[in-house]
Amino acid sequence: KPPSDSGPNKVQELCVYEINERDRGSPAYLRLSQKEVNSLADLVPFSNKLYSGNLEKRVGITAGICVLIQHVPERGGDRYEAIYSFYFGDYGHVSVQGAYLTYEDSYLAVTGGSGIFEGVYGQVKLQQIVFPFKIFYTFYLKGIPNLPKELLGTPVPPSPTVEPTPAAKAAEPHAAVKNYTN
Amino acid sequence: KPPSDSGPNKVQELCVYEINERDRGSPAYLRLSQKEVNSLADLVPFSNKLYSGNLEKRVGITAGICVLIQHVPERGGDRYEAIYSFYFGDYGHVSVQGAYLTYEDSYLAVTGGSGIFEGVYGQVKLQQIVFPFKIFYTFYLKGIPNLPKELLGTPVPPSPTVEPTPAAKAAEPHAAVKNYTN
Amino acid sequence: KPPSDSGPNKVQELCVYEINERDRGSPAYLRLSQKEVNSLADLVPFSNKLYSGNLEKRVGITAGICVLIQHVPERGGDRYEAIYSFYFGDYGHVSVQGAYLTYEDSYLAVTGGSGIFEGVYGQVKLQQIVFPFKIFYTFYLKGIPNLPKELLGTPVPPSPTVEPTPAAKAAEPHAAVKNYTN
Repeated sequence: KPPSDSGPNKVQELCVYEINERDRGSPAYLRLSQKEVNSLADLVPFSNKLYSGNLEKRVGITAGICVLIQHVPERGGDRYEAIYSFYFGDYGHVSVQGAYLTYEDSYLAVTGGSGIFEGVYGQVKLQQIVFPFKIFYTFYLKGIPNLPKELLGTPVPPSPTVEPTPAAKAAEPHAAVKNYTN
Repeated sequence: KPPSDSGPNKVQELCVYEINERDRGSPAYLRLSQKEVNSLADLVPFSNKLYSGNLEKRVGITAGICVLIQHVPERGGDRYEAIYSFYFGDYGHVSVQGAYLTYEDSYLAVTGGSGIFEGVYGQVKLQQIVFPFKIFYTFYLKGIPNLPKELLGTPVPPSPTVEPTPAAKAAEPHAAVKNYTN
Repeated sequence: KPPSDSGPNKVQELCVYEINERDRGSPAYLRLSQKEVNSLADLVPFSNKLYSGNLEKRVGITAGICVLIQHVPERGGDRYEAIYSFYFGDYGHVSVQGAYLTYEDSYLAVTGGSGIFEGVYGQVKLQQIVFPFKIFYTFYLKGIPNLPKELLGTPVPPSPTVEPTPAAKAAEPHAAVKNYTN
């Protein structure tokens, strides 16, 4: 869907995995609605680990908040408004905002970034693999210089059984970006 | 105020109505300040219905959160920091951030978008018609291809009595965008 | 770090001080985690005063929310995801998102703006002077016309003892931007 060209507006694809390894106390489901079913008023701060698309490098974390907008019983899931960032160690970060639907893929807006992502814009596709523990993202980025090679390895095709390499999971120096965010 | 030109940076105006039909449990006023008067610490998740400016098409919803910043007694209202998105069915979405003043018009930043709004930037004027049930928005958008005609009908001038057409309210197929967000 | 050139993408630097004068009920630390140590689930709405970098003009306020992501005991501080705006009176506003680390400088993304900041992008460096009362920011802004001179005075070098001039603190007409945000 996103067009591809080669000028200053060329699109760069960047794939990452967000994985909840249940060691960060995340997500924090705040049932401020005080209702039994998920409802508007519930808030969900979260932070998970972030790996390169080839699962060979730990790059950092995600961090932000989901606002429960609507329980969607006919789809067996929920609509959230998601406002968060992806942190890539010394490379900087990318901020995004849009819908997170627990029952369907969605596209979010890339709203800005820092470091090598300064001035970035575009969108990102969110594909849920295992709710809510594994999510695969494909960023379509514009407005920035060529991305570093270590972020661009061929992505592992999303499936429920994908796992980071043991070295990436351990964030060993050769399997993590410089000063990976933690 | 926003300038208009014709190059790649041309400004496209897009008008929409946000209407609270009291059927979505919104807004959820979370009085986390535990004070009687609205105060910093109160949060207000919300989601309302969205119609085209001519009120002939249901396009989708708004979704997001307002952070109460300050009660302004001399103006009989409140300042909020508003962080939310406008959903347009299959067309995608636009995210915005800025001030929502219950006593005065304001301009918010367009921070990004998806679908036909991928790469969008600019600002949006918020005009309150009936607090907090009817709001009229004029987007001044840049960085995107020409908007589809069905979003660009001549807007109904804002007034307290405006209502969507019965067909749009019922989201009949000819009176709703494709896969309108709900 | 951010490059500087002179074309349409030229970078404009803008320095401001955010100062908490303890008269706005800010920050509101919402310990929604119900834990003794700061933890994911805690939320911190805030709003402070904003002065020009030379401390001679009151320009407005900041407004937004910090999401506690992680307590970092080895650094004696916390990581927040910060989502907020800088208000400059009649000039408009700038929205930002990114990491606020109580123990270290950080760069946040500029996600958009209104008024003279319509269409802005870039990043901003956050330097903490006195936690959590004095913060110095250097914006690296692109995509906007030349900034007004009254915002561009030579900044006072950040130090714990800096204070706005008495006239700026009192927001006297000659020491405040037009309709400074309050």
